[in-house]
Order: sequence, then structure tokens, then C-alpha cells
Amino acid sequence: MQQDTRRCRCRDLGLAPGDILPGPLNAITDVPGVRVGHRAVVKGPQKSAVCSGVSVVMPHEGDPFKQRLAAACHTFNGFGKAVGLEQIRELGQIETPIALTNTGSVGKVAHALAGWEFAQNPDAVSVNPVAGECNDSFLNHLPGQHITEEHLLDAIAAARTGPVAEGCVGAGAGMVCYGFKGGIGTASRLLPDKKGGYCLGALVLANFGIREHLCMNGIPVGRHLEHLRDSLPPPRHEKPDEGSIMMILATDAPIDSRQLGRLARRAPLGLARTGSIGSHGSGDFVLAFSTYNPMPANAKAHTISLIQDQAKTMNPLFQAVVETVEESVYNALCMASTTRGYLGHVVHALPLDEVKELLKKYQALEPI
Amino acid sequence: MQQDTRRCRCRDLGLAPGDILPGPLNAITDVPGVRVGHRAVVKGPQKSAVCSGVSVVMPHEGDPFKQRLAAACHTFNGFGKAVGLEQIRELGQIETPIALTNTGSVGKVAHALAGWEFAQNPDAVSVNPVAGECNDSFLNHLPGQHITEEHLLDAIAAARTGPVAEGCVGAGAGMVCYGFKGGIGTASRLLPDKKGGYCLGALVLANFGIREHLCMNGIPVGRHLEHLRDSLPPPRHEKPDEGSIMMILATDAPIDSRQLGRLARRAPLGLARTGSIGSHGSGDFVLAFSTYNPMPANAKAHTISLIQDQAKTMNPLFQAVVETVEESVYNALCMASTTRGYLGHVVHALPLDEVKELLKKYQALEPI
Amino acid sequence: MQQDTRRCRCRDLGLAPGDILPGPLNAITDVPGVRVGHRAVVKGPQKSAVCSGVSVVMPHEGDPFKQRLAAACHTFNGFGKAVGLEQIRELGQIETPIALTNTGSVGKVAHALAGWEFAQNPDAVSVNPVAGECNDSFLNHLPGQHITEEHLLDAIAAARTGPVAEGCVGAGAGMVCYGFKGGIGTASRLLPDKKGGYCLGALVLANFGIREHLCMNGIPVGRHLEHLRDSLPPPRHEKPDEGSIMMILATDAPIDSRQLGRLARRAPLGLARTGSIGSHGSGDFVLAFSTYNPMPANAKAHTISLIQDQAKTMNPLFQAVVETVEESVYNALCMASTTRGYLGHVVHALPLDEVKELLKKYQALEPI
Amino acid sequence: MQQDTRRCRCRDLGLAPGDILPGPLNAITDVPGVRVGHRAVVKGPQKSAVCSGVSVVMPHEGDPFKQRLAAACHTFNGFGKAVGLEQIRELGQIETPIALTNTGSVGKVAHALAGWEFAQNPDAVSVNPVAGECNDSFLNHLPGQHITEEHLLDAIAAARTGPVAEGCVGAGAGMVCYGFKGGIGTASRLLPDKKGGYCLGALVLANFGIREHLCMNGIPVGRHLEHLRDSLPPPRHEKPDEGSIMMILATDAPIDSRQLGRLARRAPLGLARTGSIGSHGSGDFVLAFSTYNPMPANAKAHTISLIQDQAKTMNPLFQAVVETVEESVYNALCMASTTRGYLGHVVHALPLDEVKELLKKYQALEPI
Repeated sequence: MQQDTRRCRCRDLGLAPGDILPGPLNAITDVPGVRVGHRAVVKGPQKSAVCSGVSVVMPHEGDPFKQRLAAACHTFNGFGKAVGLEQIRELGQIETPIALTNTGSVGKVAHALAGWEFAQNPDAVSVNPVAGECNDSFLNHLPGQHITEEHLLDAIAAARTGPVAEGCVGAGAGMVCYGFKGGIGTASRLLPDKKGGYCLGALVLANFGIREHLCMNGIPVGRHLEHLRDSLPPPRHEKPDEGSIMMILATDAPIDSRQLGRLARRAPLGLARTGSIGSHGSGDFVLAFSTYNPMPANAKAHTISLIQDQAKTMNPLFQAVVETVEESVYNALCMASTTRGYLGHVVHALPLDEVKELLKKYQALEPI
Repeated sequence: MQQDTRRCRCRDLGLAPGDILPGPLNAITDVPGVRVGHRAVVKGPQKSAVCSGVSVVMPHEGDPFKQRLAAACHTFNGFGKAVGLEQIRELGQIETPIALTNTGSVGKVAHALAGWEFAQNPDAVSVNPVAGECNDSFLNHLPGQHITEEHLLDAIAAARTGPVAEGCVGAGAGMVCYGFKGGIGTASRLLPDKKGGYCLGALVLANFGIREHLCMNGIPVGRHLEHLRDSLPPPRHEKPDEGSIMMILATDAPIDSRQLGRLARRAPLGLARTGSIGSHGSGDFVLAFSTYNPMPANAKAHTISLIQDQAKTMNPLFQAVVETVEESVYNALCMASTTRGYLGHVVHALPLDEVKELLKKYQALEPI
Repeated sequence: MQQDTRRCRCRDLGLAPGDILPGPLNAITDVPGVRVGHRAVVKGPQKSAVCSGVSVVMPHEGDPFKQRLAAACHTFNGFGKAVGLEQIRELGQIETPIALTNTGSVGKVAHALAGWEFAQNPDAVSVNPVAGECNDSFLNHLPGQHITEEHLLDAIAAARTGPVAEGCVGAGAGMVCYGFKGGIGTASRLLPDKKGGYCLGALVLANFGIREHLCMNGIPVGRHLEHLRDSLPPPRHEKPDEGSIMMILATDAPIDSRQLGRLARRAPLGLARTGSIGSHGSGDFVLAFSTYNPMPANAKAHTISLIQDQAKTMNPLFQAVVETVEESVYNALCMASTTRGYLGHVVHALPLDEVKELLKKYQALEPI
Repeated sequence: MQQDTRRCRCRDLGLAPGDILPGPLNAITDVPGVRVGHRAVVKGPQKSAVCSGVSVVMPHEGDPFKQRLAAACHTFNGFGKAVGLEQIRELGQIETPIALTNTGSVGKVAHALAGWEFAQNPDAVSVNPVAGECNDSFLNHLPGQHITEEHLLDAIAAARTGPVAEGCVGAGAGMVCYGFKGGIGTASRLLPDKKGGYCLGALVLANFGIREHLCMNGIPVGRHLEHLRDSLPPPRHEKPDEGSIMMILATDAPIDSRQLGRLARRAPLGLARTGSIGSHGSGDFVLAFSTYNPMPANAKAHTISLIQDQAKTMNPLFQAVVETVEESVYNALCMASTTRGYLGHVVHALPLDEVKELLKKYQALEPI
């Protein structure tokens, strides 16, 4: 985990979106047991430059194949290649880590993830790997399908609790967001006790949007930065619609797969706060899981205490989803560094000083 | 159509959300052929006060049972009682006007709507009425189920092209939005020729949200108005979760039901821009139709020219959806007047002067 | 409950489909607490003859608005007007009885059902009535919308545990199935203890199919009865596609809404065994609920012991679904009597003697 | 294509399910342009025996990435690992061949399929490979993930129009169906001109069901063959729920993705006719496409003549779906040969002589 020390998280700029306070790390790893691992793959020469990687979210400290978690998914825009969603919908649980990578390599990564679980579970004859992807073809020679099984294993080996590296790490290496460098971002919310006391975290792989749509805390930052079009030009995609975002939600709240589906369906509201119109080419997927009640794979029955759906119980979780998704996108943008990749293409980092000034000018950094 | 002349639409305040220009009326009726009709039902005494009504959107100049339109629906939060969605999903078309009313009367209104179509079509033996609802029980004696078949017929009879009355009209009479008086709102966008030249309009029945969440053009207006809590108190719902919004989208773009579904799924992004977190009790539904290619009910085949899904063709429509839904909510809030209803309950209108001042202070009225 | 004594259930013919044994009543009321009530509405003169009715399934002994049950729905063919499904999908529970009636009256019946719950629950301001329908327009003057609120209240008042009247009762009065008289049918299965020991029952409102498709226990009975075309002509529908079937599943198994959805999706396999091809005009809907764990309406949490999804736990329930739906259709056909209705239209009863002879000849009555 | 000459298709036994006549080949390749290719992979030693393969359906004569076809999918039981369905749902089209293989190799095959399309389309930066799987772990060392990219390329290279090899070919090498050897099966129906004159074909990878459930033309063949339990024992799965079936439907009818979805949802009715109860572990997926109107990948609009949804237009197609799926399963069973694989496991072929005798005895071979 090597991060550009000139970059910082959005709260370091004074930008603190939402009303609920974050957990101690302001990361998906605030949910106890959740681990994150990255393996970036960056190499030249430019003609077949690789600028991509793999990230994994390990849903708990153990093997999710042995101890299953309640889960749900939501497809906001299905123009994407996410793997493993059918079984989550049917059975309401995940049985592997969640891997993220690029569009051309998602099949290989799913294959490697199944292989890893087969290795952990010698008696297993069926595994449902869950893998999502975004399209990094502006910076990465995507059709080369350069991600290998080793890269996935590296990301798993690197997974740990604690602070999460953001920006150009793991699968985020080559991603572009709102015309600036994107990638991995994360955030969390810790509900006060009277709202349940639960923790909810998000992690996104942000690779969507055009510059003129970027909003931060309600301020149309993208349009305000129009004067930088010459000094920090946005990438000239030949196919400007090849965006996407993968959103992963984790919580320790005692909720089942149906309720996790309700959480997942709120995630796009967080995107909307950053300016998204849900563009055609942006395959936007949400995966949500609860660490509350790991179920042994072969259990025939289990007893569980669940929240019931009431305004008082669900709204704090919904709000936490919207806020963490919003803040995760900001963190991806704030933490990612200017990157040069395939064919010499350059994607500029969000200019933090200008952004801070702007938000200050428009009073979007002040508490109300 | 009797409107409070002290109220105005959001653009009259200088608030012009989004980038695309509206059509001439900035209303769903900018889509040629679309008609809107309202019938408010307001009467005392307070113990069983009625403060409700019916609104209808007539999808074209004729009878939609004879000339069917491509349609789609999207359930963002299914905690609601909308009627008629199953058949829209299966057949991809609507065959009746779309009616809006209160939660307790939606069955009766659906019944009346079917009866109206039976009367227009003596040979019909099957009609799929489409009706949505929001819960106006703070101002209306909802369990009394006071809306009658006559009221629906009145709304249909009142339907016309041209400007659309907003706020406390029709089904909007008793609605509450972000702790202020809500109701009917509408807006439209006219795409420039190079983006297809199509018209898209939205009409909402806005009855959702709590005051502290209200945002307008990125400014957290609800929290800024906190000092008015004593002079303009928000309604003290005993059941604060009984909100909802019905969103209707109309367009003349040549798109089919699958593509209309893609439009419908973007509508919640417009809600998010106004501050919504998609709260538990808010049954949020979207209905979308295209006037492009009316199909005779008994046709066995038809020839149609359709847009293909590309970034250039779809993104302008998606953006228009997000912008019109956002602006429709603002219009509902800006146009609705302070209302006293059931048990003497009062819901205050959004204080326009304060809002204008706020938006000006935070530079949200300026073009960028 | 006045039944034609010349009619009998399919097991009285020796036709015992499936492998699992029925419960004592071989009816949905074998599931403890489930009650069924019928109110047929039959009157002349022929020009506006009413030949229809209402049936209700009360999911337990109490008021489902106070004690909610886990529930799910499945739309196999959405060409229908069922009411109340959106909220079941979102919240995974039912809060009213399930009512069945004709297509033209489903809005009125939903209205009446909400009104009944409002009357039981003076503080309620939101009720989600669940009502399904089939199209009885060959025998009933459907566009007249003749069912009243009183009829629904009569059906509720008539609801009881114990044997269930079948055929031309309640909503079944005017229904047509496979070209013979259809209507209400029911069946149940009692799983042996080693398969969980649970009870599962089905009740159908059968109004679908053309004669040549009818199969019974694998024998193409419809085609074998072709020689009766002159003596027992099938109804000449002007709109032969206006069929439908409503299928209700009840169980006492400890399963949640996601798992009930899995059960519901198997119900069409039972239809297929009777010869259905899922024809265009047949709006086929399934509602499933579990009586296991009634939840107080205002609970914020609850503890529940649930079956986990394993072959051993789920397959017996799936098989019970398929078998009870199949047998319910046979019972509807076997119990319904020849009926004359609107415009003098006649629908003949399935000729039981011929059927018995046929099944015997083709050895479909023998145990294997 | 090396087939066991002692095996034959079900019509060679006299078993001709359904009413509509097949096309000349009674195969999915009766739909003009559709090609099928197989690559079986079978090798010892027994400890890590490979008994699996890849099959591909090429939807037309060209490259589906350049000329897209309208498509739909349906998940009857999502307990499976099919890849590529999200984008089909969103965009209503397929852009690659459809590949079938085993559960452990579906990620690798999807990867290879994307790679093949990247090779055909040097400018492509996004491909959505579609791949399905069934679990052949009784005969194949599935966790070894033995299928390679070469195997997929071999199957593509082998694809051609004309007769289709069935049974233990391609992905069918190691499949088990109703306790007998299963695998690939196909069938077609050619609608008479008055019913539209369209062709519809099915191809299945059949790997589901337990012996006692097998029905053929209404006769419970599985139970009748109980006396062969000693001589032809069914496989003793340790995990008896690891079945599945992939169903592919092709037609030249002018229908869009919504209508193809309606066809896809009827496919399980065909399964039901063969005895399926939709068991827990059987991930049952349907993919349907129409060859009618190939759309250039970059088209911004297109003009198309579509069937409208009427009983007369849709029911013949629905019936063809049900009949071809039923017959495809029979053909898989009839054509597959006894196979020995992993750990010496043996799966016996369906005993054709006994089956023929049985069907004759129960008069299921006679036309009615």
C-alpha cells in the first residue's frame, strides 16, 4: 500500500457529506471482520500497457464458503459483466469473497476465485464466485486480458482489517471518474445507539460520469472547473459510455437478504448526489451483505433475531447507505493520482486545491 | 383551476435546476397529446374532513384502450398500493389513463377507471386500470375512503392540454413533502435537435421526505430553515413513515417498453437531488410511456422505428428524466399553499421568500 | 355451501396425482388456522346476468393486519389485474385476507377489503389489500362490475376452517377451465416427519386453458374427449385468450418470504402437468404465505427459527407445491357443474364418467 | 461427432410429444443460421478423470458482436453460475455465442469467449460473454477446472448448421439426468403458415432430476423402471441436489426482447412435462434469441416489424417452447450412452427397449 502523500481524503479537505458520523476508520473495514486487499498490475510498454488490478472484499475473518452471510444484489444499470448475481438472488447469501477487476478479466478472476475456494474446501463441487468489473480501457490494454489467477491470489493474501488504501490501488489502478482519475473509495457510518448502533460501510470502484456532471456536496464542481479544460483535459474516450461503478455495502445490522436488497436499492441515491444521471454505458451494480449471522454451509435450520421493517429501524440504515456511497466516490476522486497508461493516455487527478477553494467559496465546507 | 397567486414555480424564484432547457410550458403537457385533469375534494367538518382528490394523466388525445402506448413501470420502494403494474410489465403498454389519488381510495378509483373504459368500449371484457396513490392521512380522513367514482370522472372530464395546475390540486390536495405542503408538480425538457429533439415531461404527486433532508439545487434548504421550526412547524405525524411519491414520465421519443424501463429507473436519481434517502414508508413508483407509436388494440403486427441504446441516444433522455423529476418536486413545493385539514391539522407552505434568499446567499440561483 | 351431489373430487374418481399423501381434508384448510369463505352472486335476466362472486382466504384465525405473515408472490404471466403485489415484494408479508373475484370487480373488492381492515383497526391509515381476479365474461356480465362491498363482507363472514366448497362457489361461479366449467379447487400435502412434517395447501381459481390441452395424470383427456364436441361443446369465446388462474399456497413450514418465493415459482409446474402452455391471455399469479411466525404489526425486531435452503429441506415442499396445484385444478374441474349464464351461454361440466373410464383404460388410476 | 449407434432419438422410439410438427432436422439448427459446436474433453486416470466439455450455440452465420440479436433470459431457479445475464436483461440483446460447460469452468470459458470476440473485433473494449453451466461432478473431476481456452475455441471451430450431435457430446459428456446419463438434447417446431410459419428450436444441457420423477409423455417411466434399480443403479450423489439444466431457445419469429422473455418463462412448463419439480439444487436458466433482425452494433436507430401480443400470435410460439423443451430432454436421455468417469463412477443410459415397451403398454406411443 503505497499512496501518493499529496492526496488526501475528502474529510481532510473539510468536505464532510451527510449527517451521520463515520466509524473510526471511515472505511468498510469499520464493520467488524471485513477485510480488503488490493493487487495493482501496472507495467509498460505503452502499446500493451497494463494499468489495472484486482481488489477483494473478504466479508469476514473466515472462509465465506464455510460460514455464509446473508446478501443481496441490485442491478441499477445492467450494462455490465458482473458474475455471480443469480445465485445471490435465489439463495440470499454469498459464499465467496467479492472480487473487483476490469471488464476483460472478470471471467478469469471469477475462475480464480472459484479455484481458491476449491482449494480451501476439498469436498466442494460447486462454488459461486462473485466478481464485478469496470472498464479501464482508456489507461489499460483491456482486450489483452492481462489479469492472472496469481493477481487474484495476491489480492486475497493482502486482505486485512484496518485502514483501506484508496484511489489507484487494486482494481482502481486504471479507472476514470467524472473525467478525473478514479478508482477505489470507501466510507462508513456508525449509527448512534438510539438508531440501532449498527455500523455500515461502503466500498466503491468508481469509473463513471463525465466532468460536467460532477457535484460535491451540492456544488457543481465539474462545471466550475471548466477553465481547467486545457491544463487538465478530460480523457477523450472514443467510447465515452464505457463507465461503470461497483458498490459494495457491508453492515453488522441483523437484517436478512430481502432487507439487504432494500439497502442496495438506495445506493444509486448516493451516486445521484455526486451528479450521476445513470448514463447508458455505466453498468452500476450493488452488492450488500450482513456480517451478523454467519450460517454454517450445511445447516438445515437456524435461529436468528432480525430487525423488522419500520421507519425507525430502516431509515438510519438507508441514510447511511446514501451517505457512504456519496463519500466513497469523493474519496476515490480525492485519493487517486494523475496516471499515464496505455498508448500514453493521461488521466488527471482531481485538483484538490481548486476544489477546496470552490467548496469554501460556495460555503459547502461549513457545518449548518 | 384556482391557484394561490402568492405562490410561484421554482423558475420564478430563479431556481433553474439542470442543464437542458424546458419545453414551452415546462410541463408534462409539452409532450404532444398528453392531457392532465384534476378534481380536488375538500370539505369539513374537521372530524371527518376530506382533503384529497384525483388527478389523471391522459396519455394522448384519444382513448388509450383503443390506441395503446408503449409503457414501463419501476418500483423503487414497493411499500405502496399502486394498481395495474403487473400487466404493464408483461405487455409493455398502458391501455387506460393513469389516475392518482389517496391510499384509501385507490381501489375505488381503479374500479371507476375500469368502468369508464368499459363505457367507452362496449365490447371490452378486460381492462387494466392504472392507479397510484400517496398517503394524505395527516390532512385527510383517509380511512373514510371518501373519493367516489364521480370524482374520477370529473378529473377525466377536466383533462386538457396546456398549462398544468400544480400544488394543492387534484390528488395533491392533502399531500405533504419534506415537512411542507406538497402535491402535484410538473416539468419538461426539450432536447436540442442534435440530441434527438425529443420532448420529455414528468408529473409527480409529491408526498415524501422529512424537512431536514430537503435540498434545492444542492443547498440543504431544510436544515437552513431550522429556525422556522416554531413559526412553521412540520406536521407531527404519528406515523412519520407514511410518505410516497408517484412519478409519471411521458416522452415522444421512439423507444419501446424496455427502454422506457431504463428511463423509469433513473427517476429516483432526480429524487435524490432533492434530498431523498428513499425512506422506508415512502412507496415510490414510476410510470413511463411514449406517445410515439400508438398501436391499435387488435393489431397482429406493427412496424416501428426505434432508437437503439447508445450513449448518444439515451443519455440525453436519462438526463431529462433526472432533471424533470427534480424540478417537478420543487414545483410541487413552491406551488402548494398552507393547508388546514383533518382534525385541524395544518401543513405550512414552503416559505418562498426565505428560500429565495437562501439560494441567493449560497449562489444557487446563478448560472455557472 | 350448496354443492352438486353428482360431482365429486378427483380422488373419488380414483385419480390421486403425485406421491405425497394429502392432509385430512385435502384442502388448504389443513394448514392450521387457514379459513376459506365464498359468496357467489348469481342472478338473471340473461342480458345482464351476474354469474360471479367473491372468495377469500383468511391466512390465520386472527386479523392479518395485526399479526402479519411472511408472504411472497410470483407473476408467471402478468396479463392480469391482481392488486397488492408490490408491497408483498417489498416487505415480504401480507396484512389482509386474500380476496378473489372477477376482472371487472377487482378494484371494488380491493376497496372493500381495505375498508374492512380500516373498520377492524381504527388507528390504521394505510392498508394493502390483496385481491386477484379471473375473467368470467363468458358467463357473467363482467363490464357491469356487479360485485359489491357487501359481497366481500359476506365472503369474509362465511370464512371458516374445515372442508372447502369447490367448483362453482364464490369467485368460481362463472369460471371456465380447459373448455369445461372451472372455478375453485383445493388440495393439500402433509409431509412425513422425516421430510419435515409440514403441511402445505393450495387453493386455485381455475379459469384457463383450451380443451385440447387438458391432461390428467399424464393422459391427454382433452383430446380423448374430442368426440363429445357436439354434445358438450366448448364455449365459443370471442376472445379465447381471456383466461387466467390465481394460485394461493399456504404452509406452516418455518420459511421466510424469499423461500416462499421459491415455492411460488414452482406452482406453474403443477399447471403444466394439467396441460397448460401458459397461454398469452392467462394472467397467472401465485401468492404464498407461511403461518409459522405471525409478527405483531409494530414489532421492531423478532426472533425466528428458519429452515435453511437444502435439498432435503426444500424439495419436499417444492414437490408438495407442484402436486397440490395439479390436484387443485382437477378438483375445480371435477366439482364444478354445468352452468348457464350471461346471454344464455352454457359451459358444460367435465363428464366424470367418461373421464374415469378413460383414465382407467390408460391405467392412470392405478398405483405404480 | 461420434455417436453411439445403439442409441436413437425419442421419435425413433415412436415417442412424438406435442402437437406441432418438427422442422426437417428436429433441432435448434432448423432456425436458419443457427450453428452448434461441441468439444468433449474425456480422459483418465480415474482419480482426476476429466469427463466434461464445451458446447456452443452460434446464433447466426456471422459474428454476433457485429450483428446483435434480440434476446432475453429467464432464471427459473437461480442456484447456478450462469454468466452474462445482467446485460441481456438491460439491453435485450446478445453479442456473443452462447457457451455451455461445467460449473467449475464457466469463468474460464466466459474469459475465453470474451477473448475470442476481442480477437474478431480489434476495436472492441467491452464484450459480454454468455456462458451457462451444469454440475458434472459425479463423472468429472470438476474442482480441477480442466476446461481450457482451447476447448472453447475447438467448440466454436466445430460449429455448423445441419444435424446436431446429442447426448454425451460437448458439455454433455458428464451430465446426469433423472438418474440416467444425460447431456445435450435438441428439438424444433415449424409452425404452420396460419400460425405464423415461424421456426422455433430448443437445445438443452440436461443434468437434473431424480429417477423416480421421470415422466415421458405422461407415463411415470422412472417409477416403472424401479425394478432395474439393482442392474442399472442410479448414481449415488453425495450431494443429490447438484443438478441443473440450461435451456436455449432460438426462433426466426419477429419478436423483441420483452416477447422473448415471455417465451423463456414458458420453458419450465416443458421441464414439468418430463417430471421436474424444480428441485432446490437445480439451477435452471433459459436463454432465448430471435434471428429475425440482426442489428449492427453501432446503429443509432432501426426499423422493425414486430408481432403484437395476441393469443393467435403468441400461443403457437408458447406451445412450441413447451414442446421443444420437453422433447429435447427426451432426446438427451435417449441419445446419451452409459458412461464411466471420475473415481470409476458409472452412470447408466436410459434403457431404450424397456422404455419403448413401457410407453407402448401404456399407449403413449399412439397418436390420438
